[in-house]
Amino acid sequence: MTSITGIYETVLYGEDLEALENFYAGVLGLRRVSGESHRSRALRVGPSQMLLLFRASETLKPHPLVPSHGSTGPGHLALSVEPGKLEAWREKLVAAGFPIEREVDWPTGARSIYVRDPAGNSTELVEGQIWPK
Amino acid sequence: MTSITGIYETVLYGEDLEALENFYAGVLGLRRVSGESHRSRALRVGPSQMLLLFRASETLKPHPLVPSHGSTGPGHLALSVEPGKLEAWREKLVAAGFPIEREVDWPTGARSIYVRDPAGNSTELVEGQIWPK
Repeated sequence: MTSITGIYETVLYGEDLEALENFYAGVLGLRRVSGESHRSRALRVGPSQMLLLFRASETLKPHPLVPSHGSTGPGHLALSVEPGKLEAWREKLVAAGFPIEREVDWPTGARSIYVRDPAGNSTELVEGQIWPK
Repeated sequence: MTSITGIYETVLYGEDLEALENFYAGVLGLRRVSGESHRSRALRVGPSQMLLLFRASETLKPHPLVPSHGSTGPGHLALSVEPGKLEAWREKLVAAGFPIEREVDWPTGARSIYVRDPAGNSTELVEGQIWPK
């Protein structure tokens, strides 16, 4: 048994942090827990997780506290939504100018919709469990 | 209030999936929930989350089911560990050949250690809460 209990922080990269924050906080409703910075933004996801938005051109530079990191090219993130809410998300995303790129009905009964965030990352909203327990 | 309840999948990229799986499953103890593939591996993190390991050179190609994605350069992931377990992780990681790159005592009382995974991603193990609720 491992004593690792969950994902605490996941990250996405993009150079325009304001556009990313407008999407993840303004459209998806994740709660901001940090102020503006030229380097990053921090958003809360559910009760115990964080989505960090980073400018790779900044985070690749040596930092006095934390290790450097930073990738380029489209990343991926999947967020769980409450049962029965996926249709409302589809409508909200399209109305906000984020067309649904793909939609998948999984063999497990789960359903996903995928959009591109303002940096081109593939963001998935999932209702149900795609993966076996 | 948003109806997004948590992170379901986070991803890391690397070309040598076997080396990545050996680290995340073999050393960190995350549970494999998929077989071998030239494209990806899937590991369970805690009761309701997944870490997906991807070869960007494969996932950037068009796929019949899911959108393409794939980034290069070092990414970042933070995993929560049970209270009191961080010291044991430090010893285990060093013994497994993964030296501690940084260590941070956060103002909130949380503590983090950072290592590089076999693909160069910055992997953080956290005890406690870095971010405000």
